[in-house]
Amino acid sequence: MSTEKGTISIHTENIFPVIKKFLYSDNEIFLRELVSNSVDASQKIKRLSSLGQFNGEVGDLVVDVKFDETAKTITISDNGIGMTAEEIKKYINQIAFSGATEFMEKFKEANDANEIIGRFGLGFYSAFMVADKVEIDSLSYQDGAEAAHWVCDGSTSYEISAGTRTTRGTDVILHINEDSKEFLSKFRLQEILDKYAKFLPVQVRFGTKTTSEPDGEDEEGKAKYKSVEVDNIINNTNPAWTKAPSELKDEDYLAFYRELYPNSFDEPLFWIHLNVDYPFNLTGILYFPKIKNELEIQRNKIKLYSRQVFITDEVKDIVPEYLMLLHGVIDSPDIPLNVSRSFLQADGNVKKISNYITKKVADKLQEIFKTDRKGFEEKWNDIGLFIKYGMLSEEKFAEKANEFCLLKNTDGENYTIKEYYEKIKDIQSDKDGNIVYLYTSDVAQQDGFISTAKTKGYEVLVLDGPLDTHFTSYLEQKGGEKVQLKRIDSDIIDKLIQKDEKIELTLSEEESKKASELFTKAISRTDMNVNVEALAADELPVSVTLDEFMRRMKDMAKTGGGMGFYGNLPDNYKVTVNGNHPLVKRIIESSEEEGGKLAKQAFDLALLSRGLLTGADLTSFVKRSVDMI
Amino acid sequence: MSTEKGTISIHTENIFPVIKKFLYSDNEIFLRELVSNSVDASQKIKRLSSLGQFNGEVGDLVVDVKFDETAKTITISDNGIGMTAEEIKKYINQIAFSGATEFMEKFKEANDANEIIGRFGLGFYSAFMVADKVEIDSLSYQDGAEAAHWVCDGSTSYEISAGTRTTRGTDVILHINEDSKEFLSKFRLQEILDKYAKFLPVQVRFGTKTTSEPDGEDEEGKAKYKSVEVDNIINNTNPAWTKAPSELKDEDYLAFYRELYPNSFDEPLFWIHLNVDYPFNLTGILYFPKIKNELEIQRNKIKLYSRQVFITDEVKDIVPEYLMLLHGVIDSPDIPLNVSRSFLQADGNVKKISNYITKKVADKLQEIFKTDRKGFEEKWNDIGLFIKYGMLSEEKFAEKANEFCLLKNTDGENYTIKEYYEKIKDIQSDKDGNIVYLYTSDVAQQDGFISTAKTKGYEVLVLDGPLDTHFTSYLEQKGGEKVQLKRIDSDIIDKLIQKDEKIELTLSEEESKKASELFTKAISRTDMNVNVEALAADELPVSVTLDEFMRRMKDMAKTGGGMGFYGNLPDNYKVTVNGNHPLVKRIIESSEEEGGKLAKQAFDLALLSRGLLTGADLTSFVKRSVDMI
Repeated sequence: MSTEKGTISIHTENIFPVIKKFLYSDNEIFLRELVSNSVDASQKIKRLSSLGQFNGEVGDLVVDVKFDETAKTITISDNGIGMTAEEIKKYINQIAFSGATEFMEKFKEANDANEIIGRFGLGFYSAFMVADKVEIDSLSYQDGAEAAHWVCDGSTSYEISAGTRTTRGTDVILHINEDSKEFLSKFRLQEILDKYAKFLPVQVRFGTKTTSEPDGEDEEGKAKYKSVEVDNIINNTNPAWTKAPSELKDEDYLAFYRELYPNSFDEPLFWIHLNVDYPFNLTGILYFPKIKNELEIQRNKIKLYSRQVFITDEVKDIVPEYLMLLHGVIDSPDIPLNVSRSFLQADGNVKKISNYITKKVADKLQEIFKTDRKGFEEKWNDIGLFIKYGMLSEEKFAEKANEFCLLKNTDGENYTIKEYYEKIKDIQSDKDGNIVYLYTSDVAQQDGFISTAKTKGYEVLVLDGPLDTHFTSYLEQKGGEKVQLKRIDSDIIDKLIQKDEKIELTLSEEESKKASELFTKAISRTDMNVNVEALAADELPVSVTLDEFMRRMKDMAKTGGGMGFYGNLPDNYKVTVNGNHPLVKRIIESSEEEGGKLAKQAFDLALLSRGLLTGADLTSFVKRSVDMI
Repeated sequence: MSTEKGTISIHTENIFPVIKKFLYSDNEIFLRELVSNSVDASQKIKRLSSLGQFNGEVGDLVVDVKFDETAKTITISDNGIGMTAEEIKKYINQIAFSGATEFMEKFKEANDANEIIGRFGLGFYSAFMVADKVEIDSLSYQDGAEAAHWVCDGSTSYEISAGTRTTRGTDVILHINEDSKEFLSKFRLQEILDKYAKFLPVQVRFGTKTTSEPDGEDEEGKAKYKSVEVDNIINNTNPAWTKAPSELKDEDYLAFYRELYPNSFDEPLFWIHLNVDYPFNLTGILYFPKIKNELEIQRNKIKLYSRQVFITDEVKDIVPEYLMLLHGVIDSPDIPLNVSRSFLQADGNVKKISNYITKKVADKLQEIFKTDRKGFEEKWNDIGLFIKYGMLSEEKFAEKANEFCLLKNTDGENYTIKEYYEKIKDIQSDKDGNIVYLYTSDVAQQDGFISTAKTKGYEVLVLDGPLDTHFTSYLEQKGGEKVQLKRIDSDIIDKLIQKDEKIELTLSEEESKKASELFTKAISRTDMNVNVEALAADELPVSVTLDEFMRRMKDMAKTGGGMGFYGNLPDNYKVTVNGNHPLVKRIIESSEEEGGKLAKQAFDLALLSRGLLTGADLTSFVKRSVDMI
C-alpha cells in the first residue's frame, strides 16, 4: 500500500444534529446566545461608526426580546449592523465560520476589538434546541442594502428570500417546539435574562413595565399621578466593575453589591477592585462578606463573566478554595471557555489568574492592616475565619498573612503572631523552656479555668472558631520557637505551665491515699482518674480536666482531619483533688457516709463548672440544692 | 431578490479547532474517550463472533494503556475489531460519522446493540487536547486485511500508509505536547483510569504490579515466596449493578460498596437494586448510608455511569435533592448526554428517571417497615434524617412516608404518626380540644422539664435532629387534627397542656405582689419576666421558660427558613415563681437581704437546669456553693 495524503472532513448532516442538540447541557442557553449575538451586532455598528466606516445615525442601540404565546414565537431583535443575504449565507449557513473572529481580525489594530463576544459562531444554532423553525429577517447598515429573509426548519436545508425589515438590524424569530413551551412565559424569560443578561453592555428591553409619573394637580392642589407603561430595560450596561476605581465611591460599591445580591441582608466589609491587563485581562470586584460560621452556605457566590456575559457561578479552580467565601464578580475574556462556555480547567491561564487573585487579596488585607489597624481589628471577627482558612490551605497566602493574622485574648486585646510571642514568652515559659499559649474554645463554658489562670498572671487566647482545631497546630509549627498550645481545661494550671517552684502537700501520704480512695468511690465512674495534688488552698477542691493531645486528636477526627481512629476512643478525664483545700481535709475526717456525700457534691460542682453535669444528674443536683437552701 | 434554496455547510478547517480543543472542559477526558473507543472495538468483535460473522478466535479481550516518558508517548491498544485503511478514512477522517451509530443501525435486531458506547464519534479527536501528533496502527479482523497506519499532526491533513501491526486490533499512539506532560506519569494515569474506567466491561491493563507467589520450600521446610510481576488489570468488568439481583447475596452488595468507596469506614444499612427497561433503561444500586448530622459532607456520592463508563458524580436534577444523601451507582444509556458527556438537564427523561427513583426508594422503605418493623426501628437513627428531608421536600414521598415515619419518645419507644396520635389524643388534649405533642430538642439539657412532665403522666417526643425545627411544623399541618407541638421548656407544664382544674394559690394577693417584686429585683435582668403562679408545692420553686412561637421562628431564621426578621430579636424568658412552694413563703418573710440572696440562689438553680448559667455567673455560683458545703 502506497502512502496517501488527504484532508479530514466533516459531513454537515452528521455533525449538525450534534451542534443543534448536544452541544449545550442546558436549554435555556439559547437566549444567552441569541441576545449575545445581538449585542455583538450592536457593538459592531458603534465600532464602524467610530472608525468612520459608517456615517449614518447610530441611534439608541437596543436589543428587544418579545414573545407571543398564541403564535408560539420568541423574537430577538436588534438595530445593530444587520446582514445582507450574502452575509447570512456566509455567517449562518457556513457553521463555525465565526463572524466575530473575522471582524476582530480586520480591526485588530483597534484596541477594543475584544469587545466582541462571539467566538465560536455555533451559538446561533442553539436556537434549534427549543425551536422547530427559525427565521431571520435582516437589513444591513450598508448603503442600498436589501432586506433578506432566511428560514430553516432544523434540517440542513434553508431558504433565503427578500425580507421585510425596513430599518437597520436583525430579527431572529423562533417557532418554539412542543417540548419547550415553558419558555413562552414572561416569568421564565425574565428569569433567564436576569441570570445571563443583567450586565450586558447594550440595553436589553423585555416588554414594558408599569410605573407612575406626575400628572398635574387635583382640585385641592395636591400632586396627581398617573400610571404609565415604560420600557423594561433589564440590564445595567455599565456595571461598577467596568469602571475605573477612581470613578467609584464607597456607596457605588455598596450599591453594586445590592444589585448583585438583592436578597442579601448584610453589607460587605470591604472590597477589592481587580484590574489587570497583562499577562491576562481581568476585571472584577471581590467583596469580603461578614462570614458566619456556616462555611458551606457561603460558597459559590462569585459570578464569572466574560465580557459582561454571565458564564457561571461555579468558579472552583479559578478562585482558590478559601477565596470561594468571597462574593462579587470576575470578568475575564482570557479565562478559556469551551464551546458550551464552561471554563477549561486544565488551562495554564487559569492557574495564573488564581495566583493573581490570591496575591491581590493578601495585599489588600495587608494594606488595611497597615493603614487602619483599629478598623482591621474591628473587622477581625468577620474576616478571621477566612484568613485562617487561607493560611491553612495556601502556603503563599500564609507567608503574607502571618504578618496580619490576629490572636485575641479573653480581654479582647489583639496581637499579631509575633507580638503575642514577644508579649508572653517570658511569663508563660515553663521549666523546659516551652512557651505555653493557653487558649479557650468556649469563653463561657471554661470561665472557671480562665479565671484561675488569670489570678496566676497568665493570659488566655480565644480560639473558638470552626478551624481553630487546625489553627492551634499551625501556631505550634509556625508561630515561634518552642510554642505549645494548651487548652485551658486540659489540666490544672500549674501542670499546664510547670514552673520550678513546688507547693508542699499538707496531707500525709496515708491521708492522701485515703482521699484518693474516697473520691474514687464517691465518683464511681470508669472514665474518671483521681489524682490528689498539692495546690494553693484557695483553689477549688476538685477540678476535672481532659488531656490536650487526646482531645485535639478527637477534635480533628470530628472535623475530618483524618484521625478517624481517635474518634472512637472514649474520653478519659483527670480528676485533680486539691489536697491542700480545707474541704478535703474535712472529708477525710468525716464519717464514710458524710465524707462520700461531700466528695460527691464537690465533684458535681467540678463537673458543673466544665458543663459536664447534665441530664438526670443535673436534675437531681438541682433538687438536692433546693433542699439544701 | 428571488427565493433561493441551499444547504447549510460546515467548513472543516473552522470547526476542527473547536472539536480538538474546545469541546471538553477537562483535558483528562482524552483517556476516557480513547479507552472507551477500544472497549467498543472489543465488544464489536465479540458481537460479530456471536452472530457468526467472525469465525476466528476472539481470545482474551484486553485494552492496554502504556506510556513512555522518554519518547513522550501514551499508547492505547486493543485486540478488537481493527480497521482497514478504508475504514480509517471513513470513521476517522470524516468527523462525526459515528461508527457506533452505523454499527447499531446494522445490527439493531440484536438486543444488545446498545452495548456500544460511542455515540458522537467526536471523542477520538479529544486526543489533540494533549497531543501534537496522533498515530493509528490497525489491522482489521477481516480475512486478508492489510495493516494500516494513519498519522495526523493536528492540522486537517493526514497521511495514511501501510501499517506494522501483525495481530488484529488497533494502537492509538499520542505524542504528548509540552503543556500536557503531567499525563506522562504512572500516578496520574492510574488516577484517571480509576475514575473513569474502573467498571468498564472489557479488561483494561495498565502496566504490571508486583505480587508474591509460592516458590517451593526452604531448607527447613518452610514455604518460600518469590515476587513476580503480574498484569495490572484496573477494572472489574462485571460490577454488581450489571448482575441480576437473584445472583447477589448481601456480602456481594457490601463488597461492591467497599469497591465503590474504599475510604469509607461505615457499612451501608441496606440497598436498592434498580432495574428498569421501560420506558427507559436504567440499572444501579443505591445504598442507604448511616447518615451523620453533617448534611453537606454526605452529598455527591452517587456516581453516574453510561454503559459502565463513568460520567459524573454531580447528579443534581437526576436524583431528587434529598436522595443526594444516598450512595451508589446509576447507569443509564437513556440519560441524555451532551457532547462532553455532561447530562442534559432539560430533557424529559431526566424527570421520569427522578420520579422512578423516588418511588423505588419509598417502596423499599415501606417494604422493610412492613416485613421487619423491629429492624426498621433499629435503623431509624440513621435513616430518620433522610426520610424527614424527603417528607419536607417532596410531597409524593411524604404521602408514602407518612405511613412509616417514626416518632420516638424519651423512653425509646417508636410510633408511626398515626399510632402516636391515637396513643396520646385523650391524655394530652387540653381544655380547648388541642392535642399537645410535647417534645424535647435536647434530652440531657431539658431533663428537668422532661421529668416534671412524666410525673404528670405525659410523654415527650425526642425531636433533636437538624431538620426537626421544620418537622414540628410539618406534624402540626399533616400529623392529625388539632395537633400542636410544644417544646417541653417553653412553659411550665400546666400551661403547656391547660386542663380545666385549677390549683389554688396559697399566697395572698399582697404576698404574691411582694414575691414578684422581690424576685424581679433579685434577678434584675430585662430579658426575664417574673410571674407568680399556683403550682403544686412539690414542684420547683422557680422555672425559666422560653415561649414556643418566638423560639421556633428564631430557630427557623437560624436554619435559613426565611424568618430573618426574627433572628435579630432578643430572647425573652418567662420566670415562673411557684407561689405554693415553701421556699417562696420563706423568702417573703425573710429580711430583704436574706430574701434576695435566697431568691437569687433559687433563680440560679432554675437557670442551671436549662443550661443558662454559664461563664462568670457559673463560676461564682460554684464558688458560693463550695463555701456553702
